[in-house]
This record gives sequence, structure tokens and C-alpha cells, in this order.
Amino acid sequence: MLKQPPKNSRDKTKSLLLNLQDTICESLQDSDGKGKFIEESWKREEGGGGRSRVLKNGSVFEQAGVNFSEVHGKELPQSIISQRPEAKGHEWFATGTSMVLHPKNPFIPTVHLNYRYFEAGPVWWFGGGADLTPFYPYLSDVRHFHKEHKKACDKIDPKLHKVFKPWCDEYFFLKHRNEARGIGGIFYDYQDGSGSIYKGNNKNGVASQESKEIGESNLNWDDLFSLAENCGQSFLPAYQPIIEKRVKQKFTLEEREFQLYRRGRYVEFNLVWDRGTIFGLQTNGRTESILMSLPPLAKWEYGYKAKKDSREDFLTSIFTKAQDWESDKSLEKFCLENNIFD
Amino acid sequence: MLKQPPKNSRDKTKSLLLNLQDTICESLQDSDGKGKFIEESWKREEGGGGRSRVLKNGSVFEQAGVNFSEVHGKELPQSIISQRPEAKGHEWFATGTSMVLHPKNPFIPTVHLNYRYFEAGPVWWFGGGADLTPFYPYLSDVRHFHKEHKKACDKIDPKLHKVFKPWCDEYFFLKHRNEARGIGGIFYDYQDGSGSIYKGNNKNGVASQESKEIGESNLNWDDLFSLAENCGQSFLPAYQPIIEKRVKQKFTLEEREFQLYRRGRYVEFNLVWDRGTIFGLQTNGRTESILMSLPPLAKWEYGYKAKKDSREDFLTSIFTKAQDWESDKSLEKFCLENNIFD
Repeated sequence: MLKQPPKNSRDKTKSLLLNLQDTICESLQDSDGKGKFIEESWKREEGGGGRSRVLKNGSVFEQAGVNFSEVHGKELPQSIISQRPEAKGHEWFATGTSMVLHPKNPFIPTVHLNYRYFEAGPVWWFGGGADLTPFYPYLSDVRHFHKEHKKACDKIDPKLHKVFKPWCDEYFFLKHRNEARGIGGIFYDYQDGSGSIYKGNNKNGVASQESKEIGESNLNWDDLFSLAENCGQSFLPAYQPIIEKRVKQKFTLEEREFQLYRRGRYVEFNLVWDRGTIFGLQTNGRTESILMSLPPLAKWEYGYKAKKDSREDFLTSIFTKAQDWESDKSLEKFCLENNIFD
Repeated sequence: MLKQPPKNSRDKTKSLLLNLQDTICESLQDSDGKGKFIEESWKREEGGGGRSRVLKNGSVFEQAGVNFSEVHGKELPQSIISQRPEAKGHEWFATGTSMVLHPKNPFIPTVHLNYRYFEAGPVWWFGGGADLTPFYPYLSDVRHFHKEHKKACDKIDPKLHKVFKPWCDEYFFLKHRNEARGIGGIFYDYQDGSGSIYKGNNKNGVASQESKEIGESNLNWDDLFSLAENCGQSFLPAYQPIIEKRVKQKFTLEEREFQLYRRGRYVEFNLVWDRGTIFGLQTNGRTESILMSLPPLAKWEYGYKAKKDSREDFLTSIFTKAQDWESDKSLEKFCLENNIFD
């Protein structure tokens, strides 16, 4: 039996996630300098609602979407009940903030963030994460993004990052392409302090044996709340230095075309594999808010093949595979030799 | 117990569908005048293979993809077994030709065709159809496309079209948008001459009561073979006059942008709802051939709304709903008054 959450759990998580949306939007708008977020508030028939914010045609961001929602209902869908059988027959509450940024410049990665909290009868849990999808990656950017998220996890428990990093590689994976969506980040779900930290299904064989054996977390509600807070707050320091470093970098039409082509993969992941998107679309979620994650423009090309050992080739031969970005010395050497370290 | 197919059933259907691919490609290449189909043959590990043909950057077609495949395996996937339980435990054979055309000019509709044949132990069946997805529709084009397909069905049995037309409206439907993919055409599946002609699941409530009650077909293998032949052959006379009529029509940048925006819906249908695509991607099909259906370029825009009573508004207010295109006099009047009849 789980320890019950604090009395004000719903208000606390709601205000955490509203603040996260505010802080992120404010800071991204500053970074952009030109585009403005437009807000739309909406209500959900079954209960709850949200506020969607979109910035279009900015100077940095071709599109930036940041959603907050707080919804409730009578019975969770079967896909979640099968993971949390104790939730069956209970009313549920869910709140979350999610974000996808599509920058113009192909040297700035696309990025996604989502943090969420659920309650349903006797059970409650936190989930979330952030992952980076570069087009022309630099190892130093990749390391920086991971380092900031690791710091945020380590403050709560040094075991967490060892599980959340491979879990991210496992979740954001396009099986039909045999490619990761990008260089990963962190991902976690069903965290309630009970049982194994890792609660994934290792369906792509990416989550390491180690991550499954790493054991229990024994974190309480407050710890997991702080985890979401820390991770959420680590997003801006993890991503903004990459914008600043890359935004002035000139790009060619070919590099832009490659970005559009790779954005097609982002569409494929979100529509074919992403549980949240599919679940939302198939259960009368707010379509426009759900699909805010899709890029403003995307390309498909039958039989595209990058030139061997080109920058475009390195993306799939190296950066869309799960790697030990920090410690792999041969990877570091390779990136240094090919001018894609810094 | 079904009557067994003729001894040479596999060769016969295979050569029908290979010929269909040939005839269509030849004629489309003539229509285009500039682009050439490039062919790739491929083998499937479990058994069989195919030939994929793509024409890129033509003068009429931005992309045209026409696939033929003939594949076999040990056990059909659960999604098909649940529809055809008698196939369980039997080896299976499947052959099909499928096509998606993405024209450049937004006045020429996008179009899809697929005809296929299955055998598995004691059961066999034909399936297929063709559907039209206009951006700026004209009622006369819509009627023409339907009329040619109706003629093809009527030659076999005048009951068929009454079922296959609403079945198409039902299948090519984006539930998350509450929109049909386009103006429909025909669609049928699991046709083996036994039981009700209609074997859909009416999941969107589009297939009419009438179509469910229309009864049995009592067609034999040869009839159903001829049906596939007739319908396949009706594609060119159904579509080419529309190309010829519209190809010279000038379009603006705004009309092109609207086409790209609506192509996003095509991606959404294929990746979220199309059984064939999802099944292929989740079971190690040939990804590049499966995703040849996706447009070369597509747009998404959060919160897009067409101006009331604009041409763009008419698309969703009239043409992405199931309609009686032929006989609805108020629809005809509306199209005449708004210069979208001819």
C-alpha cells in the first residue's frame, strides 16, 4: 500500500507545472527576441482544461509550443490500467506540462520536455523527461544537455540517472527505422517510490540490464515532487547555452533541407510510437494541442541516403544510437577528428 | 466452407496486379511528360518481395509511388486472424499493388489506390479500392471519379457500389479531426463471396444501415477476380481526365500553402489510422516502400482556420463529409452558385 500524497498534492503539482510553463515561455521568448507566445485556454468536456501557448515564426524558433493541462475523469484508459491495475474503478486526476521546440537553424536541436503527475484512487505517480533531437550534433552540446539533467537527478538520488538515461533511449526509439529519435536525455514514468525504479518494458532492448537491476528508490512524494521540480528547472540551463552557441552559425539550403527531412522522422515517432499522442488522438483529446508537437514543415524522400562519412551520415551512424556520451573515449576522439566536438 | 480458388490463383492474381502496376506507371509517366519512374526490386526475409517504383519532381507529379508486392509467411498477424479466424495456424500468401500520387498543382487531387489478394489455409479473399483527396474540389470531378468506379462495380453486381462507397467513407476517416480524408471512392475487404458483402466494423458510424442490410453477394472467385480487374482498370479513366482538366489551372502561393497544410492530414491518416501502414511498420515491413505514401512536403499550423465561405472553408464544410455526390440537388445548386461545379 502506497503512502498517501499530501492533502494539497493536486494544487502543489498544478502550480509547479503552471510555473514551469511560465518560466520556460518567458525565457524562450527572451531568447527569440522577435516571436511572441499566443495563449489559448480551453476546457475539457469530461472535466478540467488547459492553456496552450504557441510562438510562430520567431527569429530563433520556427515554432515553439508549450502546453499545460489539468484534467480529470471517471476511469483511466485500459492502456494505463494495465500498468497500474490498482487505479481501476477510481476517478483520476492528471496534470502535465509539455513542450516541443522547432528551431529554424538546423544547428540548433529540436527538443521536447514533459512532466506530469497522476492520481487515481489508491495510486499516484510522477512521470516525465526531456530529450534532444539534433540535426547536426556536436558532442559538447550533447554532453552539456545530459550533464544538466544528470545534476538535477543526482540531487535527489545518484541512482536515478543510471536508469532514466537508458529509459529515454528505449522510449524515444523508432523501431521501423531502427533509430533513436535523437541523443536522448532522461525519461521516467510510474514513479511512486515503490518497487524498482525502472518500470519500462524494455521493448527495444535498449534499457540495460544494469538499469533493471539498480534496485528501488524508496523516495517519498516530496522527493519525487522535488525531482520533477529539479528536472523541469534544469531544462533552460541545459538548452539555452546550445541556442546561444549555435544561433549565429550560418547554414546552407542543403542543411535546411536535411533538417526538414529529419523532421519527418519526428512526425513518424509522434504519430506511430508516442503513447501520449496516440492515446490523446484516439480518446478525443484536444487535437490542436496534442499535434502542436508536429513541425511546421517536414519533408519525406523515398530512398534518401546520406553520403558516406558526411555530417548527415554521422547523424544516423553515431548520434541516433544509445551511447555513453560522457565516457566513451573513442567517440570523443572521433568527434574531435571530424570537427563535431565543439 | 469456401469453394477453393482455382489451381493457378496465385499466378493469376500476381500477374493481374503486376500488369496493373505496369499500365498505371506507363500512363502516368506519359501524363507527366517529364518525370521518370525509377524501379527498385526487393526481397523479404520471411518470403517473397516486390518492386517499388517512384517518380520524383515531375511536371505534374511532385511524387508518384506505385508498389507491387507478393509476400508469404508462416502465420498472419493477430489483427487479421481476429477477422479471419479460419486462417489461424496456416501459411499465408498475399499480393497487392498500391499507389499514392502527390501532384504539384493544388487543383489536382491527391489519389490512392490499392488492390490485394490473400490466401491462408482454407480461406482466401480480395480487398481494395481507390479514394480521392482534393484540396480545391469541383463537384464535376468528384462525380466523375465516383461514376467510373461505380461502372466498374456494376459490371459484376449492381449491389456492390451501394456498399463499397459508404465503406470507403467509413475507412478513410480521421476520427481525431472528425473529417473524411477526402471525397471517398470505393473500399472493400474480406470479399470471398460468402456472407454479407459489408464486412466492416462501422466504427465511425458512417457506413449506412442500408449498406449493412444489402445482403450477400454470392460471387465466386472468378467474379471477384474480375471485380479487382475492372476496378483497377477504372482508375486511369477516373483520374486522368481530372489531371487534364486542371493541370493548366494557375495557382497562387496561398493555394500551394493550403495544399501543404492539407497534406499534413494525409500524413496523420496514414500514420495514425491506416491499418496497412501501421501493421507494416510494426512488423518489419519495408519501411521505405510503406512510407512512399507520405507527401514529399507537408505543413502543420496550430489553430489554422479557413475564412468563412472561402474555397478552403468549403473543403471541410462540404467535401470531407460523406455525401451523395450524384443525387443531392442542394449540393449541386451550392456548387453551381459558388463556381465549384466545373
